[in-house]
Amino acid sequence: MLLLVLELAGTAVFAASGALAAVRARLDVFGVVVLGMTTALGGGVIRDVLLDVSPPTTLRDWRYLLVPAITSLAVFWYHPQVARLRRAVLLADAAGLGLFTTAGTTTALALGAPVYTACLIGMTTGIGGGALRDVLLREIPMVLRKEIYALAALAGAAVVALGDRLQLPAGPVSVVGSALVITIRVLALWRRWHAPVARGLDG
Amino acid sequence: MLLLVLELAGTAVFAASGALAAVRARLDVFGVVVLGMTTALGGGVIRDVLLDVSPPTTLRDWRYLLVPAITSLAVFWYHPQVARLRRAVLLADAAGLGLFTTAGTTTALALGAPVYTACLIGMTTGIGGGALRDVLLREIPMVLRKEIYALAALAGAAVVALGDRLQLPAGPVSVVGSALVITIRVLALWRRWHAPVARGLDG
Amino acid sequence: MLLLVLELAGTAVFAASGALAAVRARLDVFGVVVLGMTTALGGGVIRDVLLDVSPPTTLRDWRYLLVPAITSLAVFWYHPQVARLRRAVLLADAAGLGLFTTAGTTTALALGAPVYTACLIGMTTGIGGGALRDVLLREIPMVLRKEIYALAALAGAAVVALGDRLQLPAGPVSVVGSALVITIRVLALWRRWHAPVARGLDG
Repeated sequence: MLLLVLELAGTAVFAASGALAAVRARLDVFGVVVLGMTTALGGGVIRDVLLDVSPPTTLRDWRYLLVPAITSLAVFWYHPQVARLRRAVLLADAAGLGLFTTAGTTTALALGAPVYTACLIGMTTGIGGGALRDVLLREIPMVLRKEIYALAALAGAAVVALGDRLQLPAGPVSVVGSALVITIRVLALWRRWHAPVARGLDG
Repeated sequence: MLLLVLELAGTAVFAASGALAAVRARLDVFGVVVLGMTTALGGGVIRDVLLDVSPPTTLRDWRYLLVPAITSLAVFWYHPQVARLRRAVLLADAAGLGLFTTAGTTTALALGAPVYTACLIGMTTGIGGGALRDVLLREIPMVLRKEIYALAALAGAAVVALGDRLQLPAGPVSVVGSALVITIRVLALWRRWHAPVARGLDG
Repeated sequence: MLLLVLELAGTAVFAASGALAAVRARLDVFGVVVLGMTTALGGGVIRDVLLDVSPPTTLRDWRYLLVPAITSLAVFWYHPQVARLRRAVLLADAAGLGLFTTAGTTTALALGAPVYTACLIGMTTGIGGGALRDVLLREIPMVLRKEIYALAALAGAAVVALGDRLQLPAGPVSVVGSALVITIRVLALWRRWHAPVARGLDG
């Protein structure tokens, strides 16, 4: 129950990030809703396709459709306020990344995937929606540019995999894993952590 | 039988739209054929992946391969005439959108998907091929820019879902649903309907 | 056993092509690894999704994860040397295309797909990873621009399908098919073969 609430919150914040990007790209109201829903549902659909869950869970449950639709419309109407809350949106995006990654890893483990497979599928769940959003708007996906993005997701997935191996209860472990992802992302944004780029490109 | 003919016609017109876009991007003859076939088959492949039909129907039936290949080559050789027929291509694209959306919705319902899931999968079937075409050519997908695109597809999917609920015969219902999509798209193009964009972007 | 070694070599060279493209786009070390792995694993994941193999083979076997990760890191650290070896990378990309295409076709035939379906899925396996790489970096995929790319893959897939029909042993046939793809690609690059573009675009 706690997990469902958290997962819907993740859906909402990813929808907000997609809708806000669409508003900035000057799309009309339908484009904003389509991109918001694609961002919110994309990661889960990719996860279910990889795990052969058909039709995808997020397309079967009306709550997963209603939440991003309403969120996208809210962003469309109130976007100046949302844009001013840019820091809150980045925080929310980090929350979505953490929650979707841990939920994806948990689902993959429950369906019998090996540990590293589950971690990869969990990462893909967390990263997929945002990557779709950026590709559709012709931008290089954030996961390729923001250095601690994929690594933060991997850390969260590893926590879930470790908890599963130690047979700890899945709910609290997911909360801890999500919190770790959020903490790493927030620290990386706040401290402006940069990973190295290859040498010799300026010469 | 009527439906097969209509569906192959949809494949042909989507192939034409992809091939024409490829000619405009100055791709060579192989690029034109690859993009034409990707546009024509993409929506159906996405639908079958979501519904777990393997291997995808459109990759299993040689007619679905032959029609877009020949269409793409015809566009390559006769493209000046086709380009002059830009209005016909837009009409054909609308026809493809309508036909693929209703066929996708019908298939999803037949495989036991809930109503809103079937509508979403139907929309994705209609929209998918064109979105692939635009992403591969580095353009923002038409579905995000043309306001009545996704809404027209949704209306057609809703007609099919309603007909299924009322246990009407699937064939005529698909024709009506497709005709509705085409009508909405043609009116939107002809009357230049615009949906609102978010306020405050110019300030 | 020979095939496994060749397939891992294909994974490595595709990872190198993705990582090198990422270095050129000035991504940091994590972006380089993510793009290298996506390029190396993308084609196989698409194949397994189309053929309903779940979870995808390349996500289940740690060797398929370790090889591209190490290759990407090596490219990141030694990229000036790799860039000087541009010709070797193009050759390696051709090898990857050949190997993945024949492996994909063989897998599809083994799972009972019709001949033309298997050829299409084999082509998609060979082409998919590179297409993902180019779309993520906002470039028009090589398969749409390099004329003999898709045709070379199709020739290799046809060899595998023919060998299967004649009940020849799969191993040697795959080697012959891969060699054909590599030969066509190398000749096309060396002789600068060009396919025609549509007439009348300059007028």
